[in-house]
Amino acid sequence: MSTTLVTTVAELKAASASLLAAKTSTHPGTLGLVPTMGALHEGHGALARAAVAENAVVVASVFVNPLQFGDPLDLDRYPRTTEADLALLDAAGVDIMFAPSVEEMYPTGEPAVRITAGKLGSLYEGASRPGHFDGALTVVAKLLHLAHPGTGLSARDGGTRQPYRAYFGQKDAQQLALVRRMVADLDFPVDIVPVPIVRDPDGLALSSRNRFLSGREREDALVLSRALRLLRRRADAHEPLDIPSAEELVHMIPGVELDYLEVVDPETLAVRAENCQDTPFTGRALALIAAQVGPVRLIDNVTLG
Amino acid sequence: MSTTLVTTVAELKAASASLLAAKTSTHPGTLGLVPTMGALHEGHGALARAAVAENAVVVASVFVNPLQFGDPLDLDRYPRTTEADLALLDAAGVDIMFAPSVEEMYPTGEPAVRITAGKLGSLYEGASRPGHFDGALTVVAKLLHLAHPGTGLSARDGGTRQPYRAYFGQKDAQQLALVRRMVADLDFPVDIVPVPIVRDPDGLALSSRNRFLSGREREDALVLSRALRLLRRRADAHEPLDIPSAEELVHMIPGVELDYLEVVDPETLAVRAENCQDTPFTGRALALIAAQVGPVRLIDNVTLG
Repeated sequence: MSTTLVTTVAELKAASASLLAAKTSTHPGTLGLVPTMGALHEGHGALARAAVAENAVVVASVFVNPLQFGDPLDLDRYPRTTEADLALLDAAGVDIMFAPSVEEMYPTGEPAVRITAGKLGSLYEGASRPGHFDGALTVVAKLLHLAHPGTGLSARDGGTRQPYRAYFGQKDAQQLALVRRMVADLDFPVDIVPVPIVRDPDGLALSSRNRFLSGREREDALVLSRALRLLRRRADAHEPLDIPSAEELVHMIPGVELDYLEVVDPETLAVRAENCQDTPFTGRALALIAAQVGPVRLIDNVTLG
Repeated sequence: MSTTLVTTVAELKAASASLLAAKTSTHPGTLGLVPTMGALHEGHGALARAAVAENAVVVASVFVNPLQFGDPLDLDRYPRTTEADLALLDAAGVDIMFAPSVEEMYPTGEPAVRITAGKLGSLYEGASRPGHFDGALTVVAKLLHLAHPGTGLSARDGGTRQPYRAYFGQKDAQQLALVRRMVADLDFPVDIVPVPIVRDPDGLALSSRNRFLSGREREDALVLSRALRLLRRRADAHEPLDIPSAEELVHMIPGVELDYLEVVDPETLAVRAENCQDTPFTGRALALIAAQVGPVRLIDNVTLG
């Protein structure tokens, strides 16, 4: 069987209801949602395969959400590769690809009532993209509601796994933290499943934006994962992290303009002041990096400890 | 059978699941949610009876939500009447009263990610209570998720009635408009059912705050509904509304300090500039009034046309 392409909410609901009924005739089924903006690569492939392995029915959404782009030029040039996306999802065993138009997602225009990410939404990626996370969380809230398979359980049901799961990549660490915060704070009836970063053999984290890098820029971009690996080695060795020396590594590449390199709490994303500089590293943390490389802004991260 | 009082999310889910299973052995059941802040009166009674008439299982929540009070004093003195609330809900035939603690609703403290009401949240009631509607919509979003009975349908299913409904009074017209906007903009899988204002025989709209009025203040407060009735008579007669003359009526009562009297679009709540002053009234509109009477702020409204 192959992936069914649907473009309207009504088709999505009909297709997922009939598949759930067919695939889960005896037990209540589970549905996995993989929200994407398309331009799919093997990082998305990993999300899709994780969802297919765990759920009776998997829906992947492909929607470039205008609400999360501040810059209309960035929105315009965001790659759209519907045919290739469908092929990748099909190969991964996804049941339904939901690729709505902007009008289908926002039938009355820009939403008046929205999700706001609060303070956490204005840090790191939010600092250079005001409103980005509000827009991203708003469309995730809509997709979580629209793809909901028909269960009333929420994450508060004392450790029971939910019959509804949504998959997000760890590459967008801040987005993942905010989606988890939203689901907890607003009691969405869904389990959020994080999926590890997929990297090219040379260490570059896969991104839909990598296609815009020249050969030279791609080479330069490797310094991001190199700086993160340096921090990880020190954390593993329980040495002081010495963040300035990792920054120095990035500054040595003239084609790379570092925006930030921060070591933060994995859940709250609060900057970790302790055990980073002068004392041996202990505990768990997340190292976040963002830089402009040629025409694109790249982000990456690693877990420490 | 009588109303079951539950105070935790886990109890709520267990009680509603077992009642839904018992009451709807053959068909999928419908669940009605009546969100309240307690201090229940016959206006809430009307909400509860409407829900009982239409659903297999009815949950009424009683929660004074700190997030929607700007003034801690106002929060403190908001009446709490749990015993009487339970008796009223029991008489109305409600199945479950969900009365959580603040810690149960906000287990990790104030939510970081919230709903924002946008521009509409800063008009009318929002002008004098900054953040009020953001807080109210945030707790409504949580309650809609927590009481969700187990169906994946949303308001977009082409006219089909949903098996999940939530009941809101027309007295809080702006709150009702914002809840509807939230449900549409974020695709919550629920039907919002509006329930008409209940009035005392003399015209005063029922409110949990009326108990704070002295006999004289209560008398003074009648001018709110009188001013609205004047506008309605003119609208019914297709005369110009002449809003200033209705305002004059209120200004004549020294104990009443008018905040606003506005004629607005029933859905967008945008001030209606046309057909109000000089030309005969046509179409449909909502007249909103708010005033301070003695120790309390009162609001009321009527539909015109």
